[in-house]
Amino acid sequence: MNSFMDRDFLLDTPTARHLFHDFAKDMPICDYHCHLSPKEIFENKPYENITGIWLSGDHYKWRAMRSCGVEERYCTGDAAPREKFEKFAYALQYCIGNPLYHWAHIELQRYFGIDTPLNARTADEIYDRANEAIKNGDFSPRALIANSNVKYVCTTDDPVDDLKYHKLLKEENLSFSVLPSFRPDRALNANLDGFPDYIRTLGEVSGVEIRSYKDVITALLKRADYFNEVGCCVSDQAFDCPPYIEAKPEEIEEIFKRAMNGEPVSDEECKKYQTPIMTALGEKYCELGWAMEVHIGAMRNNNTLMFNKLGADTGFDSVGDREIAQPLSRMLDALNKNNKLPKTILFNLNDKDNTVLATMLGNFQSSDADSKVQFGPAWWFLDTMDGMTNQMKSLGNLGALGKFIGMETDSRSFTSYGRHEYFRRIMCRLIGRWVEDGWYADDEDMLKEIVQGISYNNAVNYFNFK
Amino acid sequence: MNSFMDRDFLLDTPTARHLFHDFAKDMPICDYHCHLSPKEIFENKPYENITGIWLSGDHYKWRAMRSCGVEERYCTGDAAPREKFEKFAYALQYCIGNPLYHWAHIELQRYFGIDTPLNARTADEIYDRANEAIKNGDFSPRALIANSNVKYVCTTDDPVDDLKYHKLLKEENLSFSVLPSFRPDRALNANLDGFPDYIRTLGEVSGVEIRSYKDVITALLKRADYFNEVGCCVSDQAFDCPPYIEAKPEEIEEIFKRAMNGEPVSDEECKKYQTPIMTALGEKYCELGWAMEVHIGAMRNNNTLMFNKLGADTGFDSVGDREIAQPLSRMLDALNKNNKLPKTILFNLNDKDNTVLATMLGNFQSSDADSKVQFGPAWWFLDTMDGMTNQMKSLGNLGALGKFIGMETDSRSFTSYGRHEYFRRIMCRLIGRWVEDGWYADDEDMLKEIVQGISYNNAVNYFNFK
Amino acid sequence: MNSFMDRDFLLDTPTARHLFHDFAKDMPICDYHCHLSPKEIFENKPYENITGIWLSGDHYKWRAMRSCGVEERYCTGDAAPREKFEKFAYALQYCIGNPLYHWAHIELQRYFGIDTPLNARTADEIYDRANEAIKNGDFSPRALIANSNVKYVCTTDDPVDDLKYHKLLKEENLSFSVLPSFRPDRALNANLDGFPDYIRTLGEVSGVEIRSYKDVITALLKRADYFNEVGCCVSDQAFDCPPYIEAKPEEIEEIFKRAMNGEPVSDEECKKYQTPIMTALGEKYCELGWAMEVHIGAMRNNNTLMFNKLGADTGFDSVGDREIAQPLSRMLDALNKNNKLPKTILFNLNDKDNTVLATMLGNFQSSDADSKVQFGPAWWFLDTMDGMTNQMKSLGNLGALGKFIGMETDSRSFTSYGRHEYFRRIMCRLIGRWVEDGWYADDEDMLKEIVQGISYNNAVNYFNFK
Repeated sequence: MNSFMDRDFLLDTPTARHLFHDFAKDMPICDYHCHLSPKEIFENKPYENITGIWLSGDHYKWRAMRSCGVEERYCTGDAAPREKFEKFAYALQYCIGNPLYHWAHIELQRYFGIDTPLNARTADEIYDRANEAIKNGDFSPRALIANSNVKYVCTTDDPVDDLKYHKLLKEENLSFSVLPSFRPDRALNANLDGFPDYIRTLGEVSGVEIRSYKDVITALLKRADYFNEVGCCVSDQAFDCPPYIEAKPEEIEEIFKRAMNGEPVSDEECKKYQTPIMTALGEKYCELGWAMEVHIGAMRNNNTLMFNKLGADTGFDSVGDREIAQPLSRMLDALNKNNKLPKTILFNLNDKDNTVLATMLGNFQSSDADSKVQFGPAWWFLDTMDGMTNQMKSLGNLGALGKFIGMETDSRSFTSYGRHEYFRRIMCRLIGRWVEDGWYADDEDMLKEIVQGISYNNAVNYFNFK
Repeated sequence: MNSFMDRDFLLDTPTARHLFHDFAKDMPICDYHCHLSPKEIFENKPYENITGIWLSGDHYKWRAMRSCGVEERYCTGDAAPREKFEKFAYALQYCIGNPLYHWAHIELQRYFGIDTPLNARTADEIYDRANEAIKNGDFSPRALIANSNVKYVCTTDDPVDDLKYHKLLKEENLSFSVLPSFRPDRALNANLDGFPDYIRTLGEVSGVEIRSYKDVITALLKRADYFNEVGCCVSDQAFDCPPYIEAKPEEIEEIFKRAMNGEPVSDEECKKYQTPIMTALGEKYCELGWAMEVHIGAMRNNNTLMFNKLGADTGFDSVGDREIAQPLSRMLDALNKNNKLPKTILFNLNDKDNTVLATMLGNFQSSDADSKVQFGPAWWFLDTMDGMTNQMKSLGNLGALGKFIGMETDSRSFTSYGRHEYFRRIMCRLIGRWVEDGWYADDEDMLKEIVQGISYNNAVNYFNFK
Repeated sequence: MNSFMDRDFLLDTPTARHLFHDFAKDMPICDYHCHLSPKEIFENKPYENITGIWLSGDHYKWRAMRSCGVEERYCTGDAAPREKFEKFAYALQYCIGNPLYHWAHIELQRYFGIDTPLNARTADEIYDRANEAIKNGDFSPRALIANSNVKYVCTTDDPVDDLKYHKLLKEENLSFSVLPSFRPDRALNANLDGFPDYIRTLGEVSGVEIRSYKDVITALLKRADYFNEVGCCVSDQAFDCPPYIEAKPEEIEEIFKRAMNGEPVSDEECKKYQTPIMTALGEKYCELGWAMEVHIGAMRNNNTLMFNKLGADTGFDSVGDREIAQPLSRMLDALNKNNKLPKTILFNLNDKDNTVLATMLGNFQSSDADSKVQFGPAWWFLDTMDGMTNQMKSLGNLGALGKFIGMETDSRSFTSYGRHEYFRRIMCRLIGRWVEDGWYADDEDMLKEIVQGISYNNAVNYFNFK
């Protein structure tokens, strides 16, 4: 039996151990998509206890606790920090097979120096030891980032954001870069509450009087230029299903007007509105040399009762199952046929779509970049041992895994860089097994290039960070 | 090489063997969903030969035989019992990788004391030995149930059923409880033949004059009260796709009237009719403290020719592939937003939906129960080594596997309890490997609690059987 | 560590090695579906260099190259043969996990006697050695087929084809048979460019004046008779989603007229047109004793820019994700209910549909043939280690794997018979592991029958080739 989560965790062959320890482990981190707050990085306020780090905003953990019958007051409520930690430890022991279990222990080991397995019996002791470590160490955001060997952090920002903290951070002498990403979702979701107010804000910020959906485009393109000046090179958009339904300008105009009046807009109508906007944005990204991330398949805010109490991003999202192949193909083709397809990264949240995405890539590759259309790493609910392994197998089977840009955390937490380590161990396990089984030549040079490429180098080249 | 299906069948690590033999094997069985006949249990008529036990009603076996070119008269026809058994044995030898192969041998070993592999050459000898065992042993339904260490049997019953045999069985001094389950499918399927007749029967049995779909609800709620008195605590409903399409009462009324006149009702109209009924039923289940089972994804009676000859449940069903995420979310949210969501168990028949279901759970958990919304075990066509492993991995990755209520047989046969053993071996194999690989702490107390919980205790707690 | 792709490649247990080397390896090949050119086989012109064999028409390889940023002139363009080969070798080294990597090395070993792993550094040397082998050996199409131990080759032919080369090949004294297959896709795709011209050609070739969709049927049935005379016993059709939408004859007539006028026809209308044609064709296939292949799920020609430059089948296809269960069931049932369902082979391109297809089979089996409805082998994008393993596991779990007709290449290349070896190794690995784990009896006779059946015998029996 292997020891619990030791040095060779997940590395089940000599080749896997060699690849990880000698090639992957010490590579820096390029976290090209996350939800860290630039304000928090700038203000750099240290955490006071492990409950603050772990349970103040992590909906993964809240879901696990609710699944074990833990009351809401220990999740998002006013229970004492120690009680919350105890309840989390209680729930965690039932989460056998869940990455949360591994993430928690990786974080305990790497950031807090604690090797003891966490459960209901050890919770109190670990709570004290972790807080002792926090008291004696530097648990400020900047220290956590720098000590994790991170070189690039791409946050997720709204087009109306003034990027004040990104500008301020540029002035600091940091060992890592914090870059904004352009996420225009609120300008696209004409069917959600708050759309008219948002569009008015967008008009004000961009200095465009918005009377038509075409003005929305104008405003967004101006903001993209602004983001570009501040160092942005990635955009991100999330869809339950990629939008591509062509419609006449008059029809789109009418849909936009109704949305601005707060009237209901159907799913199909919303997609008609989104179609020309996405085409215009994609062309702009292409001109700016940005990469376009497309996150497909989340179904959000399913629990109305809790949404009304807690708002979005509180652990009530799940995975959708729409047909995505055709609209995605048409969306990409609409850009490509005018030679305006930007570098594109496709993410799916439903693993039933792995084969669709892994083969979609191949339709639009070119010599513009190595794997210009990328299959983004397994994300959110798929950010698991099985999810990551299956995504890499799909890409391996159907594309050029050696050109994969690899992992990002997609996280809101400053201690989640352990997910890069987790990913690299899984990647080295998979590749190591292939080599051991005689499926890939035992070629030291190529294996080093591939493993270090997927760990870090491919992403840095892809985004032209160097 | 391991011996064929020996004591350590499927248990490929020391930990797996320890977990199964020391923790799982001797736990009782809580079979919370099956299709056994309470009448047959009450009448307790012993079987006369193995063909009667194995081939008189098992559509799994008929399908396997038809797949090997066996003529229908050996399946459902009038061939002699020995001939049928021989043909089944012939077919079984080609079913490499099929759980039927394992189920058959587990049953031969446990119920008949026969270790010889079954094939065309051994069929005659095994036929004789099995019938000898039947002659010398007690192969009555009650003995088969009791000797399998079963404590709870939840049958599947129509709301119009008088539950006479459940009441009679309550009077008997049995080592196990036989409880009814409430399955209102025939009142929901307004698009199927026989609907008007069924509704008339429902009206008579419940003493409700049914003129409106609202009267259907009234009648069903009355029957639910009656079922509750007789000990029911589980309801079950099957959908190709969960129904949730809102419509005005007048429209639903009009759809109901057409259905009662025997006129065609479209799939969408049927779902409009089902929507308010499921909401009313779900609220009722919540009030009664019942669990609501939802079986999603069967596509039934595909072969019209054979349906006309043999009727339903004869081996001509397969797996559908509808989009289910959104209607399922809305159906559950409609109940939850009024604080009326009952305990719910979601089953999918298409494994492409594992991720959708495993994440849907997390949207509606609460402190009402440990994993109030459960991911039901891999079922019917997924009741396989791969199906069960994948379902548990999904739940492990995305929920709290340690709170899983585990297996039920969903079976029509009194010798199918071997499927619980099969499930437990697979579960111990999976968990054993995780522990051996250092993915979960080697914590004897927790592993015992988890393994015994999934085997039996979690279900008993969930249904409040104790 | 195992040696790279040696004699025991993929054979990870003693049983797997025994099954492959003693039972599978030397069985002949029945390639019942491929895209070889009968004209090229007849003309039998030898290849001059490995670039001609490997890169003149293989869109798999072009895709891999484009995914690594290789310029189009090295794929389909006018670069020199050596340069193209070097660029392919460069790309291949990043294709870790891709079957292309294995196919290339199997071909290098078996056809060219080269054991060196191919990469950017070894490309030049291997290019020279391969061309030396070509110069000194017989690399003509007929020699490549015969030396691969192929007994049956079923090509893919349009109903308007005169089958001249098939007739000429019949006169030759060959060690293998080359048979036509009937692929009526162009007569079915009323929504594609070129449809009216094609229908006019079909009318001329068949001697039927085509004024109605019913005349299309008449013409196709006549051509089926002609194909039957020349030895055809397989038909093939490809659908994004199987067509089954019933409509009145007048409506179908109107759709057909519009299509013949070059007017747009919607996807739904096209399926209405296809429905009666497929029913009539299926009945005809049944009468002729043919097998009907149905390939489901390709989404073709996604890249308009490249389609306009290079045309179809150049590497810009990917996998669709339509709902297929219901129309497929209805299409098969429409034939079956009149006792006119032919032998049928169902292929899916999206692995999310494995369970749907593997269970669909069981709905329509009969004593007409062993596994009359077959689950075709993992195809195209699924023709991978994982794809093949998962397809066989699905069939194993849900059907009678021992009656599986096994592999075909679906290829355009004369050196792709290595894919049969690859398939057999994977099949022996899977079955070997099942036996080693004690899941299937270690029964030498049955294992030989099953392995040789899946390798060759089952197909020959199924198609009545003997």
